[in-house]
Amino acid sequence: MLWRMKTALSELARRTAAPPISWLIATTLARPKLISLAAGFTDDASLPTRAVRDSMHEILRSPKPGRAALQYGSTAGDPRLRELTAAHLRHLDDVGTRKEYAADRVLITGGSQQLLYLAAEALCDPGDIVLVEDPTYFVFLGIVQSRGLHARGVRMERDGLDLAHLKQVLDSLRRSGQLRRVKLLYLVSYFQNPTGITTSFAKKAAALKLLKQYEHAAGHPIYLLEDAAYRELRFAGADEPSALAAPGFANRVLYAGTYSKPFATGLRVGFGVLPEPLLTAVTRIKGNHDFGTANLLQQTLKHAIASGRYEKHVGELERRYAHKAAVMRGALEKYFPKAVQWDDAHGGLYFWARLPRGVKTGVKSKLFRAALAADVLYVPGLLCYADDPARAKPDNEMRLSFGSASEANIREGIKRLGKALGKFI
Amino acid sequence: MLWRMKTALSELARRTAAPPISWLIATTLARPKLISLAAGFTDDASLPTRAVRDSMHEILRSPKPGRAALQYGSTAGDPRLRELTAAHLRHLDDVGTRKEYAADRVLITGGSQQLLYLAAEALCDPGDIVLVEDPTYFVFLGIVQSRGLHARGVRMERDGLDLAHLKQVLDSLRRSGQLRRVKLLYLVSYFQNPTGITTSFAKKAAALKLLKQYEHAAGHPIYLLEDAAYRELRFAGADEPSALAAPGFANRVLYAGTYSKPFATGLRVGFGVLPEPLLTAVTRIKGNHDFGTANLLQQTLKHAIASGRYEKHVGELERRYAHKAAVMRGALEKYFPKAVQWDDAHGGLYFWARLPRGVKTGVKSKLFRAALAADVLYVPGLLCYADDPARAKPDNEMRLSFGSASEANIREGIKRLGKALGKFI
Repeated sequence: MLWRMKTALSELARRTAAPPISWLIATTLARPKLISLAAGFTDDASLPTRAVRDSMHEILRSPKPGRAALQYGSTAGDPRLRELTAAHLRHLDDVGTRKEYAADRVLITGGSQQLLYLAAEALCDPGDIVLVEDPTYFVFLGIVQSRGLHARGVRMERDGLDLAHLKQVLDSLRRSGQLRRVKLLYLVSYFQNPTGITTSFAKKAAALKLLKQYEHAAGHPIYLLEDAAYRELRFAGADEPSALAAPGFANRVLYAGTYSKPFATGLRVGFGVLPEPLLTAVTRIKGNHDFGTANLLQQTLKHAIASGRYEKHVGELERRYAHKAAVMRGALEKYFPKAVQWDDAHGGLYFWARLPRGVKTGVKSKLFRAALAADVLYVPGLLCYADDPARAKPDNEMRLSFGSASEANIREGIKRLGKALGKFI
Repeated sequence: MLWRMKTALSELARRTAAPPISWLIATTLARPKLISLAAGFTDDASLPTRAVRDSMHEILRSPKPGRAALQYGSTAGDPRLRELTAAHLRHLDDVGTRKEYAADRVLITGGSQQLLYLAAEALCDPGDIVLVEDPTYFVFLGIVQSRGLHARGVRMERDGLDLAHLKQVLDSLRRSGQLRRVKLLYLVSYFQNPTGITTSFAKKAAALKLLKQYEHAAGHPIYLLEDAAYRELRFAGADEPSALAAPGFANRVLYAGTYSKPFATGLRVGFGVLPEPLLTAVTRIKGNHDFGTANLLQQTLKHAIASGRYEKHVGELERRYAHKAAVMRGALEKYFPKAVQWDDAHGGLYFWARLPRGVKTGVKSKLFRAALAADVLYVPGLLCYADDPARAKPDNEMRLSFGSASEANIREGIKRLGKALGKFI
């Protein structure tokens, strides 16, 4: 009878595709000699084993705080960590006490990734539209696809989002009667994954103002989901304030931050700053997911922040990534054909390279195969573009990470890739 | 213009109610002298601060394993922890090597709670029906409500699920044409939350057989989601094999287990054993949630299991909860009116008490208010029943936890509650 049976899987499960990156990871594992410039992993050598060990020891050596750390916490997160997080953001944004940065608007999450998922759950029904940067973070595109949402790409300029194009997209959606399906603009605002671009504060404030003008036609608020995952991986230039600092717009901003990337990715503690009614909705949904992020990890972060170990580590990372980025920059200058364009990196983990039109980078391209034959892996740019009926996906770009590869492997990897590029350019 | 605007919240968010327990928790926090027999927290005094500290120290003292623990892992979880988990289950179920217990069917999750959520996402669309025990775990009911599912309650007997009633419910759903919406039976099979009842292996096997008979009419597989969260909190009697051990039915069983409750709830590491196509679907969805449970927690559990610390702790907990349950049993015998019925506990964290009909226990009842005035809190039974049009919710029961209260507070709490009961019985 089995052959007559349909699947019991939900529509969501049937929509959920294998993540594009899983094939890349499997390829990496299967070829131990391969140099991966694809992985978004952070730098291994700088992971703070000593700081975490010391924090753990201090937490667990006395029975009372030790036991508290090993017991359940509350869904919203440890109250002191929420306070420290609010203070941390006020410091980064250089603002005084403001209700937008109150500890009770902070939710502690399992990495910032969990907040992206919860935000999508809380705001979007199947068929709804999210505006994303073109290109954008591919795991967010996975959420969009899995949850039956549609994405519309907004072009980027050197200083971030192309506001004229954002207006154009919104106007076109208004004309076609689809504006009522638009719930949010997703923006990876600092050292974007994949391009490395930072959207200026002025542009974020302007984007919020623009979105507001379309709310009447939409019939509901349109939110800005600011993904600041790479914010503290800055090694050049000045920090930009977050969208929370845009006067009068904080009730439209969902800020997603993380302590994992700038400290230890194995700890997976992120946070959100949310306005009502989203704070309540997202907290309730998180209660159903896991009723709170592992308390021991929260206590460890709290301890690392309060003791100054966290800030010290962020400073060390700054020097480390500045160096690794310089190594990649030098190798790109030396080994890549001049026809390949790339911008300098000021933070984050990535360089983004644009090849001449016609030179394809996709997993089935000759270039990708040649790179693989030379044991070097990159992320094809195609994977970072939403399915958007309004444009074809560019297929001549690549994301190159200096996060996890060693300096020697960065040099050697770019050299091999440059050689492969030479055959096709 | 704000007054014209509708909410941007999704249907899911608008459905998601405040968890009933949040009011109870807020009440507890607001009254520091209150004795809570409501919380599902585990015993504070037995939390393994030493074992976790030692494991952390051993993991983090050498750079190589230390850094690996602080780096991202894979979505499915640490390969060695998956192997240890498979072996652990084979040991508990007393079976040899079988493909149903293979490491590659194991998924590591953020507590077993996350697996419950992921399973509901992967199997159920809004409008689908899940069969639950009557009463059942109220956070699962929160998932059901939030995701727009409908629940049907199946009565329980002393040795678990009432199979005749399960058949009756399935027949009634078939007659009304709703069987095609039935995706799963959710069973808290060991020392159930809230009743403390364990469903025998024979009954689990019989339930699987029965469900299979309705698959043809349903048009798709009907799964058994076995929530074994309390399995290792056993302090009397013998263990029952899991539903995975039922010959020929493992492709219909989702097993949800946890290392948090029997070790440290602040660590939040659970696991699932899943058949295809659910394993793939659930793993992909988890990738979108968090791309893997915090690696440091996984390494800690792996270390605690491999070193024997985990098993040693489970043995200590057995003695500890046996004692605390004996304290509550003694107090119930001494202080509760004879008209109140309750069964002996052999594991888990709870006693379940049935008051004479007409004596209500709900949050608005005179009894609940009298208990609160005497500074003692319980979970009203009402909260543990699904909204099921086929029956009225019993309102004369209460869940009493001996998990987190001290022995002295268990005695004093039951004494106060007995006194309050005396006024109404």
